[in-house]
Amino acid sequence: MPETPASSPLTHFDHAGQAHMVDVGDKAETQRVAVAAGTIRMRPATLALIQSGSAKKGDVLGVARIAAIMASKRTADLIPLCHPIALTRVTVKFEIDPDHSSVHCTARAETRGRTGVEMEALTAVQVGLLTVYDMCKAADRGMLMTDIRLLEKAGGKSGHWQAEPPSP
Amino acid sequence: MPETPASSPLTHFDHAGQAHMVDVGDKAETQRVAVAAGTIRMRPATLALIQSGSAKKGDVLGVARIAAIMASKRTADLIPLCHPIALTRVTVKFEIDPDHSSVHCTARAETRGRTGVEMEALTAVQVGLLTVYDMCKAADRGMLMTDIRLLEKAGGKSGHWQAEPPSP
Amino acid sequence: MPETPASSPLTHFDHAGQAHMVDVGDKAETQRVAVAAGTIRMRPATLALIQSGSAKKGDVLGVARIAAIMASKRTADLIPLCHPIALTRVTVKFEIDPDHSSVHCTARAETRGRTGVEMEALTAVQVGLLTVYDMCKAADRGMLMTDIRLLEKAGGKSGHWQAEPPSP
Amino acid sequence: MPETPASSPLTHFDHAGQAHMVDVGDKAETQRVAVAAGTIRMRPATLALIQSGSAKKGDVLGVARIAAIMASKRTADLIPLCHPIALTRVTVKFEIDPDHSSVHCTARAETRGRTGVEMEALTAVQVGLLTVYDMCKAADRGMLMTDIRLLEKAGGKSGHWQAEPPSP
Amino acid sequence: MPETPASSPLTHFDHAGQAHMVDVGDKAETQRVAVAAGTIRMRPATLALIQSGSAKKGDVLGVARIAAIMASKRTADLIPLCHPIALTRVTVKFEIDPDHSSVHCTARAETRGRTGVEMEALTAVQVGLLTVYDMCKAADRGMLMTDIRLLEKAGGKSGHWQAEPPSP
Amino acid sequence: MPETPASSPLTHFDHAGQAHMVDVGDKAETQRVAVAAGTIRMRPATLALIQSGSAKKGDVLGVARIAAIMASKRTADLIPLCHPIALTRVTVKFEIDPDHSSVHCTARAETRGRTGVEMEALTAVQVGLLTVYDMCKAADRGMLMTDIRLLEKAGGKSGHWQAEPPSP
Repeated sequence: MPETPASSPLTHFDHAGQAHMVDVGDKAETQRVAVAAGTIRMRPATLALIQSGSAKKGDVLGVARIAAIMASKRTADLIPLCHPIALTRVTVKFEIDPDHSSVHCTARAETRGRTGVEMEALTAVQVGLLTVYDMCKAADRGMLMTDIRLLEKAGGKSGHWQAEPPSP
Repeated sequence: MPETPASSPLTHFDHAGQAHMVDVGDKAETQRVAVAAGTIRMRPATLALIQSGSAKKGDVLGVARIAAIMASKRTADLIPLCHPIALTRVTVKFEIDPDHSSVHCTARAETRGRTGVEMEALTAVQVGLLTVYDMCKAADRGMLMTDIRLLEKAGGKSGHWQAEPPSP
Repeated sequence: MPETPASSPLTHFDHAGQAHMVDVGDKAETQRVAVAAGTIRMRPATLALIQSGSAKKGDVLGVARIAAIMASKRTADLIPLCHPIALTRVTVKFEIDPDHSSVHCTARAETRGRTGVEMEALTAVQVGLLTVYDMCKAADRGMLMTDIRLLEKAGGKSGHWQAEPPSP
Repeated sequence: MPETPASSPLTHFDHAGQAHMVDVGDKAETQRVAVAAGTIRMRPATLALIQSGSAKKGDVLGVARIAAIMASKRTADLIPLCHPIALTRVTVKFEIDPDHSSVHCTARAETRGRTGVEMEALTAVQVGLLTVYDMCKAADRGMLMTDIRLLEKAGGKSGHWQAEPPSP
Repeated sequence: MPETPASSPLTHFDHAGQAHMVDVGDKAETQRVAVAAGTIRMRPATLALIQSGSAKKGDVLGVARIAAIMASKRTADLIPLCHPIALTRVTVKFEIDPDHSSVHCTARAETRGRTGVEMEALTAVQVGLLTVYDMCKAADRGMLMTDIRLLEKAGGKSGHWQAEPPSP
Repeated sequence: MPETPASSPLTHFDHAGQAHMVDVGDKAETQRVAVAAGTIRMRPATLALIQSGSAKKGDVLGVARIAAIMASKRTADLIPLCHPIALTRVTVKFEIDPDHSSVHCTARAETRGRTGVEMEALTAVQVGLLTVYDMCKAADRGMLMTDIRLLEKAGGKSGHWQAEPPSP
């Protein structure tokens, strides 16, 4: 189990405690999938702007979706010890939740490769939410980004994993 | 108020609803500061790894701090309508909170320029938290990133702004 | 006239013929504007897809606009001898021209700086057109990008310049 | 035909009209080739500068060739829905055409992968022409970039495709 | 031997002397390893700062290690004719050498691919040393980076190669 | 002296030993210049290839010069705690030294800004030498990059600084 030395589950450090990009050369090239999600909460008036905007005044979520997809491709540039990955698919969905005055973002990343795409899915969510923040901040600086987490992953030796329902 | 056309507080769209990078050419070059914060929650055992790691087995938070600072410099590459900004200062702090089994991240960005640095501070926080996630995910995939928000900004025409205490 | 040695109008080369990034340190920080335009020609059926898409099936031009704006910020990364520039404004417009079965793109870039923004406006147009191509290529590989040129520039020592009407 | 849902040839949008990076995970890793071309027209005096420059005063086309090759590697950073591709070969040729006072650029990109390299070849051409423009613009701001298009592609399920001769 | 035309060992140029990214499409996907090293010499007082810093005042080498690893992932962005490579492993080690008042850096890069990773290992070393320089330059501008070279490579048709011991 | 806390000359760390991007907001915007140099040593036969190549078979040093200039613009992307800087001038010179079977590279960077450009000049040299290595490595893997250092800087509070002659 080359990635997980017995001495520590922090695989991104070697035995001397020094950061490295772990060896994935012996891992199988398999289909890898990860799904991540997160939420941005805002004032109801801000949410109303996004809703009307999507219709005709400016597509906040359309812009955020593009930013999220593009950011997933920059993951290895941003996260120091991530391997470069040739993504084979990225999808990003936004859902407007008027009951909680929130927008939910879900991103799915896939590859055929030697390492997982959890970070790519999470990066897409983070930058998607940041872009919503950026586009609405003139109206509402107090927006809160929250509940950003991995929902599911599949592929690779560790196999399928699914998040437990959150307990806020 | 050049950034806020009467018709909409969504200043990133023009009158036809099309996205643009707003004109800041007439804004004054002033000292601009922004402070943002966020939290990553994890299992107590994961937090213990980070704590011991900082001591001798691998400095998770040291790596995350570098990633956060570097990401703040990439903000305009990631967020579609952000202006490129010559940051004059970036600091990133992590605090370990054993009571809530969490790590808190606070980032401060500064510039002398024509537009604010809120997005630079928020991007630093997001990528700082993502890097903590990346480095600990082999031990704990269920970590949650949460409460990411702007705490404070100063400078520019809209002046000083401070977040209200969160009410989760 | 530091940028234009008497010996050659190719200012990007020194007296020995070697490429350099020319000295703009002594130039005044003035308001600089550039407007560029270009066209992508396609089959009428492809244009119809874009038109209907904008309405409800997928906003080709909205995506291309974001790509164009983001690309203008990468100009100095792409064009070897371009100076890095802190853009203060970027706008990108697309016009559908059914008579010529074409989409026209116009980009405007602005800065307060020591050098012009012609390349930023042209890069926005090129990447805007490329993105339209990318999104429609499954339907029409034969699309043609054409008439890409600077329309106008203002600011700096050389002052205002306007393109003559094209004579194809 | 996973890339081409019956409902629309705009494969970069899902059934709800939202942009995504399409799934290529099931496509075969084959040899893929694309050839693109384009032209920049200029005053005869400008062309003469390039010609003499290539000889001894400054190699405009040599610089543009490097810019074009490097840009092909940035394609997935620039074009929102392009997949990252490990290019296995890129060549860029320039031809001086005194009869039309033009420079022609042809770029060829190759990979062994799951998706085509048309955008990589076109991006190389666009940035190659932009670089010629940049290096000569002090002498001639009215240069025109034109006739940029895909000439040929091979590999993948859609097989070989060749452009018809242009009919301007 | 597609990479080495009989006419010249400068494989990065074609028969006409024009730069290209050489064709590696026919090369086998094998395990490729490269090890590079280099040294930065400084005043003993500067070295003492690094040594004490590592302990408690600021981890110069920890920051430099992250910079080196991240830079190895940017190699194809920096070196014009390098192929993009999906690195499967990167490690960077620093050794303090009080006898020569120096820090030695060794980087190892690996991939499973069609071309070698010598440039990735060398880029890691260069940026690792540059980062040490940056962090100590307020104390010692006269530091010297030296003896940067490939130590070893394995994989690919040319097989194993090892540097001869240096003869300074 | 905000950059140099009494407690340590390692200004890139705060009092707690944590890395930060130091505050330059109060520093004056002055003309800043830095000159750096370095050498790559190779076999005489390799040097002969570069010399003949420059003439007609492939311009190694022309390609390396472009890479060096472009890399200087990426400095803040590569060196974690460097401030983004709007370079106003970059020049890169190569000299062939047959007596020592070497190529010398000298880079000069300039800005009008709040912080120096030493790292930009050094990064240009490093990437210039790396590119020479890349282009000649098929002929000579044993090339050595050496004597990379700052020669001179001017501007800013610390004023003019010049390297002492090396004593290898």
